[in-house]
Amino acid sequence: MFFVRAARVLAAGGSPRRGLVCAPFVLMRSEPMSSMLVVGSVAQDTIHNHLGTHERVLGGSATFAALAASYFTPVKLVGVVGRDFPDSGVQLLRDKGVDVRGLEVVEGKTFFWEGRYSDDLTSRESLKTELGVFASFQPKIPAEHRKTPYVMLGNIDPELQVAVLDQIDAPKLVIADTMNFWISGKPLELAKMLKRVDLLVINEEEARQLAGVHNILKAARALLAMGPRIVVIKRGEYGALLFEGDSVFSAPAYPCEEVLDPTGAGDSFAGGLLGFLAKEDRVDGATLRRAVIHGSVMASFLVEGISVERLVRVTPAEIATRYAAFARLAHFATPAEIGTL
Amino acid sequence: MFFVRAARVLAAGGSPRRGLVCAPFVLMRSEPMSSMLVVGSVAQDTIHNHLGTHERVLGGSATFAALAASYFTPVKLVGVVGRDFPDSGVQLLRDKGVDVRGLEVVEGKTFFWEGRYSDDLTSRESLKTELGVFASFQPKIPAEHRKTPYVMLGNIDPELQVAVLDQIDAPKLVIADTMNFWISGKPLELAKMLKRVDLLVINEEEARQLAGVHNILKAARALLAMGPRIVVIKRGEYGALLFEGDSVFSAPAYPCEEVLDPTGAGDSFAGGLLGFLAKEDRVDGATLRRAVIHGSVMASFLVEGISVERLVRVTPAEIATRYAAFARLAHFATPAEIGTL
Repeated sequence: MFFVRAARVLAAGGSPRRGLVCAPFVLMRSEPMSSMLVVGSVAQDTIHNHLGTHERVLGGSATFAALAASYFTPVKLVGVVGRDFPDSGVQLLRDKGVDVRGLEVVEGKTFFWEGRYSDDLTSRESLKTELGVFASFQPKIPAEHRKTPYVMLGNIDPELQVAVLDQIDAPKLVIADTMNFWISGKPLELAKMLKRVDLLVINEEEARQLAGVHNILKAARALLAMGPRIVVIKRGEYGALLFEGDSVFSAPAYPCEEVLDPTGAGDSFAGGLLGFLAKEDRVDGATLRRAVIHGSVMASFLVEGISVERLVRVTPAEIATRYAAFARLAHFATPAEIGTL
Repeated sequence: MFFVRAARVLAAGGSPRRGLVCAPFVLMRSEPMSSMLVVGSVAQDTIHNHLGTHERVLGGSATFAALAASYFTPVKLVGVVGRDFPDSGVQLLRDKGVDVRGLEVVEGKTFFWEGRYSDDLTSRESLKTELGVFASFQPKIPAEHRKTPYVMLGNIDPELQVAVLDQIDAPKLVIADTMNFWISGKPLELAKMLKRVDLLVINEEEARQLAGVHNILKAARALLAMGPRIVVIKRGEYGALLFEGDSVFSAPAYPCEEVLDPTGAGDSFAGGLLGFLAKEDRVDGATLRRAVIHGSVMASFLVEGISVERLVRVTPAEIATRYAAFARLAHFATPAEIGTL
């Protein structure tokens, strides 16, 4: 059970390519930068889709989140891989400026997932899940990372998420993801974790499951009452909803002409979101909305390639252009613009 | 087969209440007004939901569309009912300023539908469908209605939709709805109808079916190539997409705290949309976007009551307030506002 479900979150893959030698976030810098820590899975996946089979491509929630965030802020990654993990994977992260000193390499096999997508990419089937060294992952935050202000807890055992927080000094913002496996399997531990988290990102179905109510507004309020002061509900091709206090923001998804591989879209979304907040180094309502759009921008690029291949080729100019496309996509005349206010 | 599927579109219901005696659109008037004609079903429904059973409430696609549009523009309704149709139903339409001279009353029974919703309102089951006099509906457009500039072809046989257009003199804008029953059952007639329509409103699943492609951007392009120059894809609680040329607009849905009855939401959306266009009497891109939001506003009120009970109680001030809420819901800083343009 765990193996099959966990794959949904942990899986992904990529044909590693060399990125820019300089850290990409430098190109985007226009304000004081903070930094971000991400803890989660680093994996290899074999993906079968309408284009064929993609063998042992780069994957893992921390991988996607770190790469997406790397365009905005310095990123430190904490995870574990086996001796079989290719140097090219590590080098790819380094090329994008990701600090991999927290990526342990231990005896054993790297987390591996194999799955098959339906031709329209709306469903997928797990064919193989081998947790390998990830089964006994105990995140150790290097001393030099313990003061990182922005922290992303990838979707792992909520006990481990809490253990990570115990190793961090006074973070400014903690964002966490979770899934149905933990909601049903470790409710008490999840409840403890939620009390220590500022922002929960969760998909729509799991938001309803965790809140125990179908209406999405009521579900969001129930989640806010569990601890986080901000809740972001991911709705896939329908965008995302951001809840903070009484404010609700509905972010559109970008209608992509060619979706090649949705693996890691949610992780890229969360990584882009938190990376942008770290870059701006503030978490007010307006910045949160821009962060959600930047998360959506990174997810929209991610799905345009197999594994991380498109994500690592993105340029800062493309990010700005797509942000503008989101603005055009969502704009209609406000009462103030019409003059009816 | 027809009976069961048609019910999805034709069904609805409502406990008639008295509206304002004056036509509500007068209160909203701020610009020269045009007018709108709607052709479709007028029905009675019995609805079972989490609140209980609602016997023989007012329904029908033309009913919902006319009432939603009545807040913006003078509306003329063309449809058919049997001798059993209650005077209160006709009076309710009149009270909202709807011109019912085109509503035929003939020997026989009014279209009747009975259905049961799941507790979370995400699915429904048809229990009974009696087309009655609607089975032989042959829309006759009264002479005084033939120059109406804005025309809505409710979801009826595409041959009848074409027959309606043959009776209209040089309409400014024709909007049509359709459904899976006609897509699979009358593809040639549907193709002919689409060539004479300016704006197609269609739900997401049926857009994919009609276009024969899953990707929503490709589906919209395929629909545009069939005739209409504007396509609006309804996505229920996820909002709507508007396609016109290369422009795409993603409209959010309003997150309602209490959804009581979604019957007629799509018809209220289309009615509000076309009513707003008629009021503005222009169909440029910016006006279309505002029209989609007004359609969403009317649908968001509709679902807050059983049948039309909430829709007929809406005030112009509430419409303006909810439009402003949609603007807050969707707003994020554009590149121009941020100063990165």
